[in-house]
Amino acid sequence: MSNTFGNIFRLTTFGESHGVAVGGVVDGMPAGVKIDEEKIQAWLNRRRPGQSKITTPRDEKDQVRLLSGVFEGVSTGHPIGFMVENTNQHSKDYSNIAETYRPSHADYTYETKYGIRDYRGGGRSSARETISRVVGGALASMMMEGTGISVTAYTSAVGTVELQKSYKELDLSRIEDSIVRCPDAEASEQMIAEIEKAKADKDSIGGVITCVVRNLPVGLGEPCFDKLQAMLAHAMLSIGAVKGFEYGSGFAGARMRGSEHNDPFVFRNGKVETETNNSGGIQGGISNGEDIYFRVAFKPTATILKEQQTVNRGRENVSLTMQGRHDPCVVPRAVPIVEAMTNIVLADAIMMNRSAKMPF
Amino acid sequence: MSNTFGNIFRLTTFGESHGVAVGGVVDGMPAGVKIDEEKIQAWLNRRRPGQSKITTPRDEKDQVRLLSGVFEGVSTGHPIGFMVENTNQHSKDYSNIAETYRPSHADYTYETKYGIRDYRGGGRSSARETISRVVGGALASMMMEGTGISVTAYTSAVGTVELQKSYKELDLSRIEDSIVRCPDAEASEQMIAEIEKAKADKDSIGGVITCVVRNLPVGLGEPCFDKLQAMLAHAMLSIGAVKGFEYGSGFAGARMRGSEHNDPFVFRNGKVETETNNSGGIQGGISNGEDIYFRVAFKPTATILKEQQTVNRGRENVSLTMQGRHDPCVVPRAVPIVEAMTNIVLADAIMMNRSAKMPF
Amino acid sequence: MSNTFGNIFRLTTFGESHGVAVGGVVDGMPAGVKIDEEKIQAWLNRRRPGQSKITTPRDEKDQVRLLSGVFEGVSTGHPIGFMVENTNQHSKDYSNIAETYRPSHADYTYETKYGIRDYRGGGRSSARETISRVVGGALASMMMEGTGISVTAYTSAVGTVELQKSYKELDLSRIEDSIVRCPDAEASEQMIAEIEKAKADKDSIGGVITCVVRNLPVGLGEPCFDKLQAMLAHAMLSIGAVKGFEYGSGFAGARMRGSEHNDPFVFRNGKVETETNNSGGIQGGISNGEDIYFRVAFKPTATILKEQQTVNRGRENVSLTMQGRHDPCVVPRAVPIVEAMTNIVLADAIMMNRSAKMPF
Amino acid sequence: MSNTFGNIFRLTTFGESHGVAVGGVVDGMPAGVKIDEEKIQAWLNRRRPGQSKITTPRDEKDQVRLLSGVFEGVSTGHPIGFMVENTNQHSKDYSNIAETYRPSHADYTYETKYGIRDYRGGGRSSARETISRVVGGALASMMMEGTGISVTAYTSAVGTVELQKSYKELDLSRIEDSIVRCPDAEASEQMIAEIEKAKADKDSIGGVITCVVRNLPVGLGEPCFDKLQAMLAHAMLSIGAVKGFEYGSGFAGARMRGSEHNDPFVFRNGKVETETNNSGGIQGGISNGEDIYFRVAFKPTATILKEQQTVNRGRENVSLTMQGRHDPCVVPRAVPIVEAMTNIVLADAIMMNRSAKMPF
Repeated sequence: MSNTFGNIFRLTTFGESHGVAVGGVVDGMPAGVKIDEEKIQAWLNRRRPGQSKITTPRDEKDQVRLLSGVFEGVSTGHPIGFMVENTNQHSKDYSNIAETYRPSHADYTYETKYGIRDYRGGGRSSARETISRVVGGALASMMMEGTGISVTAYTSAVGTVELQKSYKELDLSRIEDSIVRCPDAEASEQMIAEIEKAKADKDSIGGVITCVVRNLPVGLGEPCFDKLQAMLAHAMLSIGAVKGFEYGSGFAGARMRGSEHNDPFVFRNGKVETETNNSGGIQGGISNGEDIYFRVAFKPTATILKEQQTVNRGRENVSLTMQGRHDPCVVPRAVPIVEAMTNIVLADAIMMNRSAKMPF
Repeated sequence: MSNTFGNIFRLTTFGESHGVAVGGVVDGMPAGVKIDEEKIQAWLNRRRPGQSKITTPRDEKDQVRLLSGVFEGVSTGHPIGFMVENTNQHSKDYSNIAETYRPSHADYTYETKYGIRDYRGGGRSSARETISRVVGGALASMMMEGTGISVTAYTSAVGTVELQKSYKELDLSRIEDSIVRCPDAEASEQMIAEIEKAKADKDSIGGVITCVVRNLPVGLGEPCFDKLQAMLAHAMLSIGAVKGFEYGSGFAGARMRGSEHNDPFVFRNGKVETETNNSGGIQGGISNGEDIYFRVAFKPTATILKEQQTVNRGRENVSLTMQGRHDPCVVPRAVPIVEAMTNIVLADAIMMNRSAKMPF
Repeated sequence: MSNTFGNIFRLTTFGESHGVAVGGVVDGMPAGVKIDEEKIQAWLNRRRPGQSKITTPRDEKDQVRLLSGVFEGVSTGHPIGFMVENTNQHSKDYSNIAETYRPSHADYTYETKYGIRDYRGGGRSSARETISRVVGGALASMMMEGTGISVTAYTSAVGTVELQKSYKELDLSRIEDSIVRCPDAEASEQMIAEIEKAKADKDSIGGVITCVVRNLPVGLGEPCFDKLQAMLAHAMLSIGAVKGFEYGSGFAGARMRGSEHNDPFVFRNGKVETETNNSGGIQGGISNGEDIYFRVAFKPTATILKEQQTVNRGRENVSLTMQGRHDPCVVPRAVPIVEAMTNIVLADAIMMNRSAKMPF
Repeated sequence: MSNTFGNIFRLTTFGESHGVAVGGVVDGMPAGVKIDEEKIQAWLNRRRPGQSKITTPRDEKDQVRLLSGVFEGVSTGHPIGFMVENTNQHSKDYSNIAETYRPSHADYTYETKYGIRDYRGGGRSSARETISRVVGGALASMMMEGTGISVTAYTSAVGTVELQKSYKELDLSRIEDSIVRCPDAEASEQMIAEIEKAKADKDSIGGVITCVVRNLPVGLGEPCFDKLQAMLAHAMLSIGAVKGFEYGSGFAGARMRGSEHNDPFVFRNGKVETETNNSGGIQGGISNGEDIYFRVAFKPTATILKEQQTVNRGRENVSLTMQGRHDPCVVPRAVPIVEAMTNIVLADAIMMNRSAKMPF
């Protein structure tokens, strides 16, 4: 269960790696939104495998097909069904793992939970599941078009290579110039080298994505359980390889004093602003008009080509050597996924916020 | 909206600092659970103000009253309503902030979102809101009694004083011996000193809470959007002052290689276990039977007694000096809140997992 | 579970007949609504026992107490908690049914479902549960104040005494003049006589309530599963004794031809109207601006004072003679309950409809 | 919004008449259920147009395609995506209604609510939307296979031709022998004649479907808002042309006395049973093990070929004569839809009931 995300703007997804298709339904899209199928495809192309030398060479076209909810290029207020067919799946690649639990994968937990496991390519736990998230996020972003709201993510660390600059010091228009999606040219090169080294070692490497939301109006987020940061954290930690989330001052904020951490308000240029932004644009769970920024930690890809110790279904201790085409680092391809989930959270928060005030 | 948390085991809460009462409803509690009102009170006593020299001296008794859903000491399967009356509220203490936005509080965002603000004690954004979470968590824990599942949180950092030991090196039965709720006597003393220093400086300080879940069965958590870590992250980030969440290897995992991070499975003692636990007890979003552990970062209390710059409702830049009785560090009292929210997530995950398999 | 009703405007309830209190939480009330506690009490007084010679003589004051969410008489956008204490409960009255299943009551099904049963006064299945619905409905009605929307229910049948006039031929301002809540004086007298006859016979009698909604804007209701009529039917059939629901032409519509049943549109007085209203004000699940009207069938009260055959917990066939103070007909007191649930459905539909269109 | 039905077993649907496809996602299907795609197709064939002389002659193959969630013929616990492509849609047939509101259709309400309308074939309000319900219901029925639970619906009235026998007097295995789906041969012929007469008159006719559920265990349904009858009523009234719902004694029960209506319990054959079944198998909102039976009223098809008065988008009073291929009576094809929605409600109720009791 729980293949639906969101309260009013809701994404429901389906699909496994080697099933017929992955896809989903966006419900709660208001009528009158311009829907551009090519832009959705452009989002998917940023996520797709085989896009550069540091991603898996698998060639998945990931062609999206909208099935409903759009009429003459505009949303009708009805659910938008969509699908992406699975076309490049080699079932035999995975036959050797039908009987063996890959370390740090979902094989063992799925099989124990469900008593049955679609072992082909990880089934539902495959990264192909994120295709539906990217389509949902692309649709969400169209709802916000023309509002000035921007959602931008980039790679801020790969392994021990960490970008030391704040997002304010970076030229975020340069992100897509880099195959690792880091806007700083120098750091980008180091990160690529780090990934290539891991790959050469038949190993994998983790990393961090930073995401920035700008021009959000004041008032998004709900005060208690659905604070904006709580919805963002939920969204981020629901992405397969994510291990941590922090926003604004984050873990560093825990080391600070209140006098240092508090963001003084100031009225200037006809606006209430804050002098600093340790709050990360959210106060009391609600956007305050400042930039929202957060960091998301990704573990190294669980699939590595080195020999590993593990257990099989017969409860024997065995060794396993994986083969096939895998990403040595998920982070570059996860950048649009982080952006997509952020857009979904914001679209939902915008819709929820419509219920805040009278009159109607 | 969104004052309900959970899918099947659900907590709905209400209440402001200076209203009649705070309280809530737990729906989805199965019938047949022994409900012990004294134990709930004991949970609340760990959260209550005035419990030690490092918490606010406000004396709030926080007496819980169960209103329904329990018959002869046992849950009936019907909703459990509960309330805690607000008895020690001094409305006049807050009159000076009716017109002024406290920095890094919810005053400005609430007023903008709703067009109206109950300024007394922060209203819904008051920490009193967490009373309902603690009652909900205490009830959730009763559902798991006798299963061996344990949820234990402790203070692992205050400001720059960080406990360097892992939870495995600590005697977690010693937590309540320390008023700061740190099981290491030496670190505990340093933390208390850190808090007292902040207090003497009319300032506040942040910190970190670590939480450990043991003896959870394999299978809890849902594969896609409601991964166990996503529900935990949502729960934690919904607590007022929280800035970050990481589980298992966390942000440190982002710096690792896959060969180092993957947890080899091993079959021993008749059980499938992992040699290491960078996964933090969760794989593919589902508990794997190992310990779950995570860290939660808290910012310094926003209320400080130093003079601060801010803005008032009339959009004037003003200075503000707060008075009153406040916690210089929220962390010690937040320990039971972290445990409570964790218990609620687990109770909900247990109930959801009942739907995983046939036959019924 | 499922003690919450509504999608955005949501009522969560708790409480049994002989517990401490019944009550609930309204979440999703927008900020800025004038909340009048006396009006809520007036709603409850229309539902309360002992209000006339044809209702149970039990004297339950049913004093409502708002616990949160209101500041200076206005809603704040935060959840409104409320409770009504149970003060006139005689637990010993019910001791004889602890071991015996009352026919057509919930005793047998509750005990089988939950393995435990609070037998005092029916526990959660008691009509006292509807107190929370009435408070929720009163609050919902306040959200619509000033919009011109009106919700009016009345008794249109008691046993075989059926009011032959349509709601359009009646003076609905006369409903409260009648203790049976029928606006037609002659039918009202016959209905009262019918109830008194049933009472004298130690028996009970069923009836029908008609409800009319006027001045609803076009557009409320969702096209697929939450059609306005589907939400109304759900709401009505969730009331204890209800056996049927029909709106517009209802069951009679099934006997008609399309040419007779279709409602021709006409543009007049600057408005799109329909010449007839077999649609009952709803087309495609969405309000069309015409009056909504529907009928709700209530079975005779299950509690009668005649001897009945039944089974006890020990699986013995036994006879049962009930005593105590009961309504011979639930319909007069159910009129405000029908109105309350209708108001809740409308409030929710209004909030959902805010998400229909761009721009935001 | 609200294109999802159910709490734990959940169906989300999408699709318009003239879009690419209709389809949906079933979430909450437990793992281990045998999924038979041919049986789903057989369900759809009972719903499909062109199946007999009394249905629309449109030839829609309605070929279902399962997209996920099934592995080697068995459910995996993951969402089951499905679609049926729209292949026989003639967009030009509908061009004349782009500017005109068809009486008693959703044209006017959709356009007002959304500001945009996919006028081709009614868009989302098309009966094609029910394809997704039938697939969902077929899947739900597979979950209950082997339990003995049976869900059987049949046509019990067409216009003024009403079947006078109770379901107990009928041979329900004969339903599919009749193109109108009435198990009584004589009534069936009269009903067919009634439909043909309406068709010859360029008119349409309404009717009633009766549905019977047998062998349901005791305990399904939730006590308060999700009483089993409330969920059924919601499900039924969400079907396009439905005007009323009654279960057990229904509206006739409102005319009865309690002594006549109450169902005496009796212990016989090792079981607690009731002597009569005015309760319709549900007491206190929960199944009591007796047969559940209910009636659903359908209005005459809104599309008729007679000339009608109406209004166009320019707010002019105009006359409209529809053409094309339409069902003169929706009831025969609605029989599997009623069964499908009933199966979905029961599957959901079964899953919810798993949460009723400890131990887990």
